Amino acid sequence: MINFQTAPERYQHWKLEVNGPVATLSMDVQEDQTLAEGYKLKLNSYDLGVDIELADAVQRLRFEHPDVAVVVITSLKPRIFCAGANIYMLGSSSHAFKVNFCKFTNETRCAIEDDSRHSGRRYIAALNGTASGGGYELAIACDEIYLVDDGNSAVSLPEVPLLGVLPGTGGLTRLVDKRKVRRDRADVFSTLAEGLKGKRAQEWGLIDGYFPTSKFAGGIDSRVAQLVSAQSANPSGIKLNPLEIESTSGSRHYKYIRVTLHREQRYADLTMLGPDGPQPTTVEQVQELGDAYWPLQAYRELDDALLHLRVNEPEIGLVCLRTEGRVESVLSVDQFLAANRDHWLEREIIVHMARVLRRLDLTAKSFFAIVEPNSCFAGNLLELLLASDRSYMLMDDQNSVAVSDLNTGALPMSNGLTRLQSRFLAEPDKTDEVFQKQRFNTEEAEEIGLITFAPDDLDWEDEIRVAIEERTSLSPDALTGMEASLRFAGPETLDTKIYGRLTAWQNWIFQRPNAVGPEGALTNYGKPTQAHFDYKRT
Amino acid sequence: MINFQTAPERYQHWKLEVNGPVATLSMDVQEDQTLAEGYKLKLNSYDLGVDIELADAVQRLRFEHPDVAVVVITSLKPRIFCAGANIYMLGSSSHAFKVNFCKFTNETRCAIEDDSRHSGRRYIAALNGTASGGGYELAIACDEIYLVDDGNSAVSLPEVPLLGVLPGTGGLTRLVDKRKVRRDRADVFSTLAEGLKGKRAQEWGLIDGYFPTSKFAGGIDSRVAQLVSAQSANPSGIKLNPLEIESTSGSRHYKYIRVTLHREQRYADLTMLGPDGPQPTTVEQVQELGDAYWPLQAYRELDDALLHLRVNEPEIGLVCLRTEGRVESVLSVDQFLAANRDHWLEREIIVHMARVLRRLDLTAKSFFAIVEPNSCFAGNLLELLLASDRSYMLMDDQNSVAVSDLNTGALPMSNGLTRLQSRFLAEPDKTDEVFQKQRFNTEEAEEIGLITFAPDDLDWEDEIRVAIEERTSLSPDALTGMEASLRFAGPETLDTKIYGRLTAWQNWIFQRPNAVGPEGALTNYGKPTQAHFDYKRT
Repeated sequence: MINFQTAPERYQHWKLEVNGPVATLSMDVQEDQTLAEGYKLKLNSYDLGVDIELADAVQRLRFEHPDVAVVVITSLKPRIFCAGANIYMLGSSSHAFKVNFCKFTNETRCAIEDDSRHSGRRYIAALNGTASGGGYELAIACDEIYLVDDGNSAVSLPEVPLLGVLPGTGGLTRLVDKRKVRRDRADVFSTLAEGLKGKRAQEWGLIDGYFPTSKFAGGIDSRVAQLVSAQSANPSGIKLNPLEIESTSGSRHYKYIRVTLHREQRYADLTMLGPDGPQPTTVEQVQELGDAYWPLQAYRELDDALLHLRVNEPEIGLVCLRTEGRVESVLSVDQFLAANRDHWLEREIIVHMARVLRRLDLTAKSFFAIVEPNSCFAGNLLELLLASDRSYMLMDDQNSVAVSDLNTGALPMSNGLTRLQSRFLAEPDKTDEVFQKQRFNTEEAEEIGLITFAPDDLDWEDEIRVAIEERTSLSPDALTGMEASLRFAGPETLDTKIYGRLTAWQNWIFQRPNAVGPEGALTNYGKPTQAHFDYKRT
Repeated sequence: MINFQTAPERYQHWKLEVNGPVATLSMDVQEDQTLAEGYKLKLNSYDLGVDIELADAVQRLRFEHPDVAVVVITSLKPRIFCAGANIYMLGSSSHAFKVNFCKFTNETRCAIEDDSRHSGRRYIAALNGTASGGGYELAIACDEIYLVDDGNSAVSLPEVPLLGVLPGTGGLTRLVDKRKVRRDRADVFSTLAEGLKGKRAQEWGLIDGYFPTSKFAGGIDSRVAQLVSAQSANPSGIKLNPLEIESTSGSRHYKYIRVTLHREQRYADLTMLGPDGPQPTTVEQVQELGDAYWPLQAYRELDDALLHLRVNEPEIGLVCLRTEGRVESVLSVDQFLAANRDHWLEREIIVHMARVLRRLDLTAKSFFAIVEPNSCFAGNLLELLLASDRSYMLMDDQNSVAVSDLNTGALPMSNGLTRLQSRFLAEPDKTDEVFQKQRFNTEEAEEIGLITFAPDDLDWEDEIRVAIEERTSLSPDALTGMEASLRFAGPETLDTKIYGRLTAWQNWIFQRPNAVGPEGALTNYGKPTQAHFDYKRT
């Protein structure tokens, strides 16, 4: 079982140092500390375990070190920044694991960019040696990239020429869409195993600058100093404590999340509990409550539950989402958060909720929202319902669906739209109507289009049961492709391109004999034999 | 060998009737007239041969019947409009063929939409019976959909529940992006094998109306009459004559296109000749010249050559694009077309060129543009260079690269940008600079960024040879995914979503054991045995 919880004192592959406004995150992968057998993490190559630590570090910087203005990502290994995802790990992983691994590393890259965008921290990739494959992809997730000019170090995306697969964490899309590298140059670069060094790499827009070895540290320091002086925040952070999880073979319970697994039937129930008891009413009280504050704790738990289901429960194809609690309590938390979103901690809490909800949108499982009496699909929790592939609401339910200010744009999908805008693409006025009315019983929710089905008491159990049985009988691959297509109507962004388009291509290529067959390039990597391709173009 | 050339008098599966401003295109698939062995085209199901006729009919309507204002697409079979792509054909086709088949049918759907958009013709899908799968996808490519309400006829996308694959010709994307069907309803509809009938189908936005059997013909007629009265053009058309093609085992020659196949080395040279001799200078002369006019004939030939290479030469992975002729001649054709683009025939010629160039963008082969003395990469032919994955221009070349008015927006990519805009995403001002300077020798073209490499005379042959060898040695699958990612930076549209995102998912699903394995749903369709799935979600 893969555990997504960690903390800096337990990191094996990264060192996180914070000096006033500057954090340094140094990669020093321990080659024997792998998540599975059969490979060594040489040359700062990584597996999922390394990336779980990176994701944790980025998350902690936001909550525990809000005073940090600049994050330098570098390596403690001489002449190598990072060699990317470990090839032997990829070669020995199942298809589903490979795809989930790439998705999580992509989400970590997007989390870095989310931090730059929303919290203004600048990420500097200080490439003290070669950055290849996922190593360079990590660099292009940063705001600025500086490479040592030692006659040897280069940036490269060697996946196509060496492995017969694509750069797997958004590299191609970030190349032409984020850094806007000219497409013919991107073509040359992405087919050049050895990559490009200092001067040409800068000319082509692959890096922002380069320094000779003797001036590298100084060059980075002076760029950091420039960036720090432009920033000015210095609040103090809160501690992210370990989540408490009670796990049995059939369940996984957190404080606010209960997961029940029906493995035989290949579905899970996931119930999210609303806030209980009195909630803080000032930013100072929230700061004091820290990570025990409901919207932070509940969404950290949801995040962990989703990752657990993705990676450790691959046969669970459907998740029934339920909520329990008082609508008023959820709405009042949302009201407080919306009113205080200019304060650093409330902002971080909101953008964290947004990230977790996007993780849900991007999870390759079906989601049904089940609205019963005592539900509280209100405000931020309404997003669970809107993120679901469909929803069922018991006809007699009283007013357990409601909107708050957080539904107006604070929790956007990867395509930049709110989930209400996505839902009402054909009738944008409906969104206004929803906010005018605010709160809905079953008939009203069905009438305005917030829910899919509203069975009455007599049909309820049968209808849910049949819906679950039908869904879990369908081809899981076809469902994954269908959901990825239907969930993201409307505009596309860098993120949706990465998850929708690039991931799909990679899924395909990861299955092809030319990559993973007995004579495929991925299979043959590092062996004396050469890959053999079926050259038919598809 | 599959032949993409046909004409109405040779149609086996469609009838095209033109009555003044109304054309009726009736599907009547002959079940034994298949393109390959091993399946029968029952229930108006189709194979590539059926779609080649449809593509031809749409093309001819534009050039031969510009006076047609409304096109009704219907079926001559009782109670069935169209059952979609033939499942046994899919089940017995190679992966590469399935993908190429889906791509061509998508391009035909997009050609219908292109006609609506640019030429104002209205397409009415008159569903006189059930439209399922690709049958309904054909319907949603039309502007309006009317279904007979006979208690039985339905619209459906049964691919996910019945076959374990996705609707393959843009159905899912058109559902939520074009018709903006609510995503939870799209989810229900796409998992419901039997589909939806009249009233509910209309409520959910799947169709625009329905009529009982006795009023169906009348209902369609009166809607057609409304639409016709809103239109007013009545020019007379030109005839599209068969292309003359000289084909040997190693070459394929047209009047303006020469293809030389280097099968051992897995690449082809494709040379496009510029206009020769005096060109027409009035719209009347063009009308008289008809399909022999260079920009129409040369691009019809290019279109056929691309389709031929895609389907009949799957192992050719790289196409070296060359041009031969006088830059001035190309520019003067462009100048004439741009000046007369309000005339119907010049407009049709321009949007046809645009469609063929998009076919090139969407072809899963690498393209290198090779610019040598006597090249004429000018105006519309410059688009060939800009569409290429990279370009090589001989250092001593004199001024064979130039822009015309057609490069400013008349020939857009699927993403809505011009190829110059796509190229200079990072530096949009460069586009203006290019139009100020107009014409470029090698040094100037390299300096401004129009070409990738400019080897000198000494290195030229070696550099081209090595580039070809390197390219054709790479994994064809990785190249397909890489090129699809790098060619379409910037915004996404319905078209790019269909080709980039949906196609990639379908490519993946088409390879999965759950679809095509011995117990897969596609393999098992129609057999007494049931499909068995590996339920791991990916």
